[in-house]
Amino acid sequence: MESRVTSENSEEIISTAHAMADAARLAILPFFRSDGLLADNKATAGFDPVTEGDRAGERAMRAVLAAHRPQDAILGEEFGHQPGTSGLTWVLDPVDGTRGFLSGTPTWGVLIAVSDASGPLFGIIDQPYIGERFEGGLGRAWMTGPMGAGPLNVRGDRALNEAILFTTFPEIGDTVERDGFGAVADLVRLTRYGVDCYAYALLAAGQIDLVIEAGLNAYDVQAPIAVIEAAGGIVTDWRGRPVHDGGRVLAAAGAAQHAAALEILSSV
Amino acid sequence: MESRVTSENSEEIISTAHAMADAARLAILPFFRSDGLLADNKATAGFDPVTEGDRAGERAMRAVLAAHRPQDAILGEEFGHQPGTSGLTWVLDPVDGTRGFLSGTPTWGVLIAVSDASGPLFGIIDQPYIGERFEGGLGRAWMTGPMGAGPLNVRGDRALNEAILFTTFPEIGDTVERDGFGAVADLVRLTRYGVDCYAYALLAAGQIDLVIEAGLNAYDVQAPIAVIEAAGGIVTDWRGRPVHDGGRVLAAAGAAQHAAALEILSSV
Repeated sequence: MESRVTSENSEEIISTAHAMADAARLAILPFFRSDGLLADNKATAGFDPVTEGDRAGERAMRAVLAAHRPQDAILGEEFGHQPGTSGLTWVLDPVDGTRGFLSGTPTWGVLIAVSDASGPLFGIIDQPYIGERFEGGLGRAWMTGPMGAGPLNVRGDRALNEAILFTTFPEIGDTVERDGFGAVADLVRLTRYGVDCYAYALLAAGQIDLVIEAGLNAYDVQAPIAVIEAAGGIVTDWRGRPVHDGGRVLAAAGAAQHAAALEILSSV
Repeated sequence: MESRVTSENSEEIISTAHAMADAARLAILPFFRSDGLLADNKATAGFDPVTEGDRAGERAMRAVLAAHRPQDAILGEEFGHQPGTSGLTWVLDPVDGTRGFLSGTPTWGVLIAVSDASGPLFGIIDQPYIGERFEGGLGRAWMTGPMGAGPLNVRGDRALNEAILFTTFPEIGDTVERDGFGAVADLVRLTRYGVDCYAYALLAAGQIDLVIEAGLNAYDVQAPIAVIEAAGGIVTDWRGRPVHDGGRVLAAAGAAQHAAALEILSSV
């Protein structure tokens, strides 16, 4: 099925995405740093917390779509897939970075992407506690936050030894993946850990050069892809291929950083 | 020399500290995420960035002290020691977490402590971009932020296998220190990395259980000590001794976590 995004409906798609982000903020924030926040364990091994905040956020976003764009499909982390008829799919992660959320750290985010068969067309990375929103696609690359609003632009080409690298490692990935990451980390100027989707927002905002991750799902990566590409950056897998279905992710602020990191990661 | 903190002047000390934090916000924020931020390298080996933001922040705080409490001594990260006559010393780190600052991550902080010979009496951890302030000592334990204001209380006793641990590791510490940290990390529920002084604020705010660090200076730890102790927590070195002069730090939200971590770390 072919999607139909035109200049007429692209504004409606964007405004729907913002309404979803607004609704998710209201739904999720009461759970952030609340006493007695419950964390179920949905994984059979390891720690994969799902909070009421996640579920409330996704319900709120699905309600906005039911009211405004019932013809679109939905793929959400918490409540799975709902088919549609428009050729467009909303890909939702209500709380990306649940571990950060459970720790009170304000670097988790609400991820909203709208995609067709070719990948994400528009995305939002929203940080409700700080009140920051990063959006990209359909002609936009923009952020709003505590210090005002402005365009998103990646920092551009830079040598690896001048680059700032972010990752969720050492918390995720298998040994081989960690070694691949480590080989890049050995060559960069500065490596930082553990801020989840916020790292992609920082890359789109021109603050950092590289994000390297593994084991991501489509709903973890589609909004970052839309925002970063709109800001002028590059997002692929560790072989240089499209990564909107998830997996091992390499995001870069310029072709130079991307090529240099890819040369190392492609041998993993 | 004996310090004289009375009910009369403790309010003045607290209001001076807030005026310093306000001045630091105004001085530092223009440099946060600014284009072309310069990072000098003051270390002969490794990466130890000092930005204009650090220097502007400390200058602004020293100006407040010169106007309101010229009798107090000052120990600041950027501009060193200035003697005083009151027996009180202000211990200042204008940007704790410079690497986070340089990366655009909003988990750096302004650290302000006022101390006598026994250690810190009052402290502030301020996050200017988010607009969050955590304060403790002289009868106060309080935070203000995007969701309003309220008292600071640690979460209290909890078993190690239910604990959330934060650290700057793997970025700092020598091999022995990293192994000690790792032995505790193996036993906790969740370990998170790299948010600098913000981890101490999260501990005081009842969000997490343990912070383990090494290689800290007095100006890195005195404000966290004041805030955490006021909120009911415990901060010592890895032998259980006072740590306001810096070194290896163990901060805990309850006696149970502190004792369990100390049993492991004290053998390092």
